[in-house]
Amino acid sequence: MNDFPAEDPRETYERFMRAALDEAAAALDHDDVPVGAVVVHNGRIIGRGHNERERLQDPTAHAEILALTAAAQFVKSWRLVECDVYVTLEPCVMCAGAMVHARVRRIIFGAYDPKAGASGSVYDITGDGRLNHQPAVEGGVMENVCSRILQDFFKRQRAMGKK
Amino acid sequence: MNDFPAEDPRETYERFMRAALDEAAAALDHDDVPVGAVVVHNGRIIGRGHNERERLQDPTAHAEILALTAAAQFVKSWRLVECDVYVTLEPCVMCAGAMVHARVRRIIFGAYDPKAGASGSVYDITGDGRLNHQPAVEGGVMENVCSRILQDFFKRQRAMGKK
Repeated sequence: MNDFPAEDPRETYERFMRAALDEAAAALDHDDVPVGAVVVHNGRIIGRGHNERERLQDPTAHAEILALTAAAQFVKSWRLVECDVYVTLEPCVMCAGAMVHARVRRIIFGAYDPKAGASGSVYDITGDGRLNHQPAVEGGVMENVCSRILQDFFKRQRAMGKK
Repeated sequence: MNDFPAEDPRETYERFMRAALDEAAAALDHDDVPVGAVVVHNGRIIGRGHNERERLQDPTAHAEILALTAAAQFVKSWRLVECDVYVTLEPCVMCAGAMVHARVRRIIFGAYDPKAGASGSVYDITGDGRLNHQPAVEGGVMENVCSRILQDFFKRQRAMGKK
Protein backbone atom coordinates (compact mmCIF):
# COMPACT_ATOMS: atom_id res chain seq x y z
CA MET A 1 0.00 0.00 0.00
CA ASN A 2 2.98 2.33 0.38
CA ASP A 3 4.70 3.63 -2.73
CA PHE A 4 7.30 5.51 -0.79
CA PRO A 5 9.44 3.17 1.28
CA ALA A 6 12.67 5.14 1.23
CA GLU A 7 11.88 8.37 -0.53
CA ASP A 8 10.37 11.59 0.75
CA PRO A 9 6.84 11.85 -0.75
CA ARG A 10 7.70 15.34 -1.99
CA GLU A 11 10.58 13.91 -4.04
CA THR A 12 8.27 11.29 -5.53
CA TYR A 13 5.72 13.99 -6.31
CA GLU A 14 8.31 16.11 -8.10
CA ARG A 15 9.78 13.20 -9.99
CA PHE A 16 6.44 12.25 -11.53
CA MET A 17 5.34 15.87 -11.94
CA ARG A 18 8.40 16.30 -14.16
CA ALA A 19 7.09 13.46 -16.32
CA ALA A 20 3.71 15.23 -16.48
CA LEU A 21 5.54 18.43 -17.48
CA ASP A 22 7.29 16.55 -20.29
CA GLU A 23 3.81 15.57 -21.51
CA ALA A 24 2.64 19.19 -21.25
CA ALA A 25 5.58 20.27 -23.40
CA ALA A 26 4.54 17.73 -26.04
CA ALA A 27 1.18 19.52 -26.41
CA LEU A 28 3.06 22.61 -27.62
CA ASP A 29 4.11 20.71 -30.75
CA HIS A 30 0.52 20.90 -31.99
CA ASP A 31 -0.41 24.27 -30.54
CA ASP A 32 -2.57 22.80 -27.78
CA VAL A 33 -2.81 24.36 -24.31
CA PRO A 34 0.13 22.69 -22.51
CA VAL A 35 -1.31 20.40 -19.85
CA GLY A 36 0.16 16.96 -19.22
CA ALA A 37 -0.68 13.98 -17.02
CA VAL A 38 0.74 10.62 -16.02
CA VAL A 39 -0.85 7.72 -14.12
CA VAL A 40 1.45 5.96 -11.67
CA HIS A 41 1.03 2.51 -10.15
CA ASN A 42 3.58 1.01 -7.75
CA GLY A 43 6.15 3.62 -8.70
CA ARG A 44 5.76 3.01 -12.43
CA ILE A 45 4.10 5.17 -15.09
CA ILE A 46 1.34 3.11 -16.70
CA GLY A 47 -0.43 5.85 -18.68
CA ARG A 48 0.52 9.20 -20.20
CA GLY A 49 -1.46 11.93 -21.88
CA HIS A 50 -1.34 15.54 -22.93
CA ASN A 51 -4.02 17.89 -24.09
CA GLU A 52 -4.89 17.10 -27.71
CA ARG A 53 -8.14 19.03 -28.09
CA GLU A 54 -6.90 21.01 -31.06
CA ARG A 55 -4.88 18.26 -32.68
CA LEU A 56 -7.69 15.71 -32.51
CA GLN A 57 -10.50 18.31 -32.62
CA ASP A 58 -12.05 16.38 -29.75
CA PRO A 59 -13.66 18.29 -26.86
CA THR A 60 -12.95 15.39 -24.49
CA ALA A 61 -9.24 14.99 -25.31
CA HIS A 62 -7.84 16.50 -22.12
CA ALA A 63 -4.55 15.18 -20.70
CA GLU A 64 -6.18 13.30 -17.82
CA ILE A 65 -8.84 11.60 -19.97
CA LEU A 66 -6.20 10.30 -22.38
CA ALA A 67 -3.89 9.22 -19.55
CA LEU A 68 -6.71 7.40 -17.72
CA THR A 69 -7.77 5.58 -20.89
CA ALA A 70 -4.16 4.57 -21.56
CA ALA A 71 -3.67 3.33 -18.00
CA ALA A 72 -6.95 1.39 -18.05
CA GLN A 73 -5.90 -0.28 -21.30
CA PHE A 74 -2.61 -1.20 -19.70
CA VAL A 75 -4.13 -2.82 -16.63
CA LYS A 76 -7.14 -4.11 -18.61
CA SER A 77 -9.54 -2.63 -16.06
CA TRP A 78 -11.50 0.60 -15.70
CA ARG A 79 -10.80 0.44 -11.98
CA LEU A 80 -7.54 2.29 -11.41
CA VAL A 81 -7.38 1.58 -7.70
CA GLU A 82 -3.96 2.15 -6.10
CA CYS A 83 -3.16 4.50 -8.96
CA ASP A 84 -2.05 8.12 -8.58
CA VAL A 85 -2.62 10.76 -11.27
CA TYR A 86 -0.09 13.55 -11.69
CA VAL A 87 -1.34 16.50 -13.72
CA THR A 88 0.21 19.91 -14.32
CA LEU A 89 -3.09 21.81 -13.91
CA GLU A 90 -5.94 21.36 -11.43
CA PRO A 91 -8.51 19.08 -13.14
CA CYS A 92 -11.66 20.54 -14.68
CA VAL A 93 -15.12 19.19 -13.87
CA MET A 94 -14.97 16.62 -16.69
CA CYS A 95 -11.57 15.26 -15.67
CA ALA A 96 -12.29 15.33 -11.94
CA GLY A 97 -15.45 13.32 -12.66
CA ALA A 98 -13.45 10.85 -14.74
CA MET A 99 -10.93 10.33 -11.91
CA VAL A 100 -13.75 9.68 -9.44
CA HIS A 101 -15.19 7.11 -11.89
CA ALA A 102 -11.78 5.46 -12.20
CA ARG A 103 -11.43 5.20 -8.39
CA VAL A 104 -7.90 6.61 -8.47
CA ARG A 105 -6.17 6.73 -5.12
CA ARG A 106 -4.60 10.17 -5.28
CA ILE A 107 -4.46 13.23 -7.53
CA ILE A 108 -1.34 15.37 -7.44
CA PHE A 109 -1.67 18.59 -9.42
CA GLY A 110 0.60 21.55 -10.17
CA ALA A 111 -1.06 24.88 -10.95
CA TYR A 112 -4.39 25.86 -9.42
CA ASP A 113 -7.16 26.84 -11.85
CA PRO A 114 -9.25 29.56 -10.20
CA LYS A 115 -11.60 29.76 -13.23
CA ALA A 116 -12.50 26.11 -13.75
CA GLY A 117 -10.67 23.93 -11.22
CA ALA A 118 -12.78 21.12 -9.76
CA SER A 119 -10.46 19.91 -6.98
CA GLY A 120 -11.17 22.82 -4.68
CA SER A 121 -11.08 26.04 -6.71
CA VAL A 122 -14.55 26.32 -8.32
CA TYR A 123 -15.88 22.88 -7.38
CA ASP A 124 -14.63 20.15 -5.11
CA ILE A 125 -15.80 17.19 -7.17
CA THR A 126 -12.96 14.99 -5.95
CA GLY A 127 -13.77 15.66 -2.28
CA ASP A 128 -17.55 15.30 -2.45
CA GLY A 129 -18.87 12.55 -0.16
CA ARG A 130 -22.10 12.35 -2.21
CA LEU A 131 -20.20 10.82 -5.12
CA ASN A 132 -19.02 7.23 -4.82
CA HIS A 133 -15.29 7.77 -4.39
CA GLN A 134 -13.00 10.47 -3.02
CA PRO A 135 -9.37 10.43 -4.13
CA ALA A 136 -6.83 12.14 -1.89
CA VAL A 137 -5.66 15.42 -3.43
CA GLU A 138 -2.35 17.27 -3.22
CA GLY A 139 -2.28 20.61 -5.07
CA GLY A 140 0.47 23.10 -5.83
CA VAL A 141 3.29 20.63 -6.55
CA MET A 142 5.88 22.46 -8.68
CA GLU A 143 3.21 25.12 -9.03
CA ASN A 144 5.47 27.82 -10.45
CA VAL A 145 6.88 25.67 -13.25
CA CYS A 146 3.43 24.30 -14.11
CA SER A 147 1.92 27.80 -14.20
CA ARG A 148 4.73 29.32 -16.21
CA ILE A 149 4.40 26.92 -19.15
CA LEU A 150 0.72 27.93 -19.40
CA GLN A 151 1.37 31.65 -18.98
CA ASP A 152 4.09 31.57 -21.64
CA PHE A 153 1.78 29.73 -24.04
CA PHE A 154 -1.06 32.24 -23.64
CA LYS A 155 1.36 35.15 -23.92
CA ARG A 156 2.62 33.79 -27.25
CA GLN A 157 -0.94 33.14 -28.44
CA ARG A 158 -1.93 36.72 -27.64
CA ALA A 159 1.19 38.08 -29.36
CA MET A 160 0.18 36.11 -32.47
CA GLY A 161 -3.39 37.41 -32.14
CA LYS A 162 -4.77 33.90 -31.64
CA LYS A 163 -6.47 34.22 -28.28
CA MET B 1 -31.41 28.68 -35.62
CA ASN B 2 -34.66 26.74 -35.49
CA ASP B 3 -34.60 23.00 -35.97
CA PHE B 4 -38.33 22.65 -35.62
CA PRO B 5 -40.14 24.51 -38.40
CA ALA B 6 -43.19 22.28 -38.70
CA GLU B 7 -42.91 19.79 -35.87
CA ASP B 8 -43.86 20.11 -32.22
CA PRO B 9 -40.58 20.21 -30.24
CA ARG B 10 -41.89 17.38 -28.07
CA GLU B 11 -42.23 15.14 -31.13
CA THR B 12 -38.68 15.97 -32.16
CA TYR B 13 -37.48 15.23 -28.64
CA GLU B 14 -39.18 11.85 -28.62
CA ARG B 15 -37.99 10.94 -32.10
CA PHE B 16 -34.35 11.43 -31.18
CA MET B 17 -34.77 10.02 -27.69
CA ARG B 18 -35.89 6.79 -29.38
CA ALA B 19 -32.58 6.79 -31.25
CA ALA B 20 -30.77 7.26 -27.92
CA LEU B 21 -32.80 4.36 -26.49
CA ASP B 22 -31.71 2.16 -29.42
CA GLU B 23 -28.14 2.99 -28.42
CA ALA B 24 -28.89 2.14 -24.78
CA ALA B 25 -30.23 -1.25 -25.86
CA ALA B 26 -26.96 -1.90 -27.72
CA ALA B 27 -25.07 -1.60 -24.41
CA LEU B 28 -26.97 -4.63 -23.14
CA ASP B 29 -25.18 -6.80 -25.70
CA HIS B 30 -21.98 -6.46 -23.69
CA ASP B 31 -23.50 -6.30 -20.22
CA ASP B 32 -22.92 -2.57 -19.82
CA VAL B 33 -25.32 -0.31 -17.93
CA PRO B 34 -27.79 0.66 -20.69
CA VAL B 35 -27.33 4.36 -21.36
CA GLY B 36 -27.38 5.74 -24.90
CA ALA B 37 -26.80 9.12 -26.54
CA VAL B 38 -27.04 10.79 -29.92
CA VAL B 39 -25.81 14.18 -31.11
CA VAL B 40 -28.13 16.00 -33.50
CA HIS B 41 -27.30 18.86 -35.85
CA ASN B 42 -29.87 20.41 -38.15
CA GLY B 43 -32.25 17.51 -37.64
CA ARG B 44 -29.61 14.89 -38.43
CA ILE B 45 -27.79 12.47 -36.14
CA ILE B 46 -24.06 13.16 -36.46
CA GLY B 47 -22.77 11.10 -33.51
CA ARG B 48 -23.94 8.07 -31.54
CA GLY B 49 -22.67 6.36 -28.44
CA HIS B 50 -23.61 3.93 -25.72
CA ASN B 51 -21.97 3.08 -22.46
CA GLU B 52 -18.97 0.82 -23.12
CA ARG B 53 -17.21 1.01 -19.77
CA GLU B 54 -17.21 -2.74 -19.27
CA ARG B 55 -16.65 -3.71 -22.90
CA LEU B 56 -13.70 -1.36 -23.34
CA GLN B 57 -12.65 -1.43 -19.66
CA ASP B 58 -12.39 2.36 -19.95
CA PRO B 59 -13.64 4.54 -17.07
CA THR B 60 -14.33 7.41 -19.50
CA ALA B 61 -16.37 5.41 -22.04
CA HIS B 62 -19.79 6.80 -21.16
CA ALA B 63 -22.42 7.19 -23.89
CA GLU B 64 -22.12 10.98 -24.10
CA ILE B 65 -18.31 11.01 -24.26
CA LEU B 66 -18.31 8.54 -27.15
CA ALA B 67 -21.14 10.38 -28.95
CA LEU B 68 -19.41 13.76 -28.57
CA THR B 69 -16.13 12.38 -29.89
CA ALA B 70 -17.94 10.80 -32.85
CA ALA B 71 -19.81 14.04 -33.63
CA ALA B 72 -16.64 16.12 -33.36
CA GLN B 73 -14.88 13.76 -35.76
CA PHE B 74 -17.81 14.11 -38.16
CA VAL B 75 -17.79 17.93 -38.17
CA LYS B 76 -13.99 18.06 -37.79
CA SER B 77 -14.29 20.47 -34.87
CA TRP B 78 -14.37 20.21 -31.09
CA ARG B 79 -16.93 23.02 -31.08
CA LEU B 80 -20.35 21.38 -31.35
CA VAL B 81 -22.27 24.64 -31.51
CA GLU B 82 -25.86 24.31 -32.74
CA CYS B 83 -25.76 20.66 -31.68
CA ASP B 84 -28.24 19.00 -29.33
CA VAL B 85 -27.37 15.94 -27.25
CA TYR B 86 -30.07 13.39 -26.46
CA VAL B 87 -29.21 11.02 -23.65
CA THR B 88 -31.36 8.46 -21.84
CA LEU B 89 -29.99 9.32 -18.36
CA GLU B 90 -29.16 12.67 -16.78
CA PRO B 91 -25.44 13.28 -17.40
CA CYS B 92 -22.88 12.69 -14.66
CA VAL B 93 -20.31 15.31 -13.69
CA MET B 94 -17.79 14.04 -16.26
CA CYS B 95 -20.26 14.07 -19.15
CA ALA B 96 -21.88 17.37 -18.14
CA GLY B 97 -18.40 18.90 -18.10
CA ALA B 98 -17.67 17.44 -21.53
CA MET B 99 -20.86 18.95 -22.97
CA VAL B 100 -19.97 22.36 -21.56
CA HIS B 101 -16.51 22.04 -23.16
CA ALA B 102 -18.13 21.11 -26.50
CA ARG B 103 -20.42 24.18 -26.37
CA VAL B 104 -23.49 22.11 -27.22
CA ARG B 105 -26.68 24.08 -27.63
CA ARG B 106 -29.09 21.84 -25.76
CA ILE B 107 -29.16 18.68 -23.66
CA ILE B 108 -32.31 16.57 -23.67
CA PHE B 109 -32.25 13.74 -21.15
CA GLY B 110 -34.66 11.00 -20.14
CA ALA B 111 -34.37 9.61 -16.60
CA TYR B 112 -33.23 11.77 -13.71
CA ASP B 113 -30.26 10.51 -11.70
CA PRO B 114 -30.78 11.54 -8.07
CA LYS B 115 -27.47 9.93 -7.01
CA ALA B 116 -25.05 11.42 -9.54
CA GLY B 117 -26.92 13.67 -11.99
CA ALA B 118 -25.11 16.89 -12.87
CA SER B 119 -27.85 18.72 -14.76
CA GLY B 120 -29.82 19.64 -11.68
CA SER B 121 -30.02 16.59 -9.41
CA VAL B 122 -26.75 16.58 -7.45
CA TYR B 123 -24.93 19.32 -9.34
CA ASP B 124 -26.00 21.82 -11.95
CA ILE B 125 -22.81 21.86 -13.99
CA THR B 126 -24.66 22.65 -17.22
CA GLY B 127 -26.41 25.67 -15.70
CA ASP B 128 -23.47 27.21 -13.86
CA GLY B 129 -22.70 30.76 -15.02
CA ARG B 130 -19.15 30.48 -13.63
CA LEU B 131 -18.24 28.01 -16.37
CA ASN B 132 -17.80 29.29 -19.90
CA HIS B 133 -20.95 27.89 -21.52
CA GLN B 134 -24.46 26.95 -20.44
CA PRO B 135 -26.43 24.59 -22.69
CA ALA B 136 -30.21 24.67 -22.42
CA VAL B 137 -31.51 21.57 -20.63
CA GLU B 138 -34.74 19.61 -20.97
CA GLY B 139 -35.10 16.69 -18.55
CA GLY B 140 -37.64 13.90 -18.20
CA VAL B 141 -38.28 13.22 -21.91
CA MET B 142 -39.67 9.67 -22.17
CA GLU B 143 -38.60 9.35 -18.56
CA ASN B 144 -40.52 6.13 -17.85
CA VAL B 145 -39.07 4.20 -20.78
CA CYS B 146 -35.57 5.48 -20.08
CA SER B 147 -35.85 4.54 -16.38
CA ARG B 148 -37.32 1.12 -17.03
CA ILE B 149 -34.46 -0.12 -19.21
CA LEU B 150 -32.09 0.74 -16.34
CA GLN B 151 -34.29 -0.76 -13.62
CA ASP B 152 -34.72 -3.99 -15.60
CA PHE B 153 -30.96 -4.22 -16.11
CA PHE B 154 -30.15 -3.81 -12.43
CA LYS B 155 -32.91 -6.23 -11.46
CA ARG B 156 -31.37 -8.89 -13.75
CA GLN B 157 -27.88 -8.15 -12.42
CA ARG B 158 -29.08 -8.59 -8.84
CA ALA B 159 -30.90 -11.81 -9.74
CA MET B 160 -27.64 -13.11 -11.21
CA GLY B 161 -25.76 -11.99 -8.08
CA LYS B 162 -23.65 -9.56 -10.08
CA LYS B 163 -24.47 -6.26 -8.41
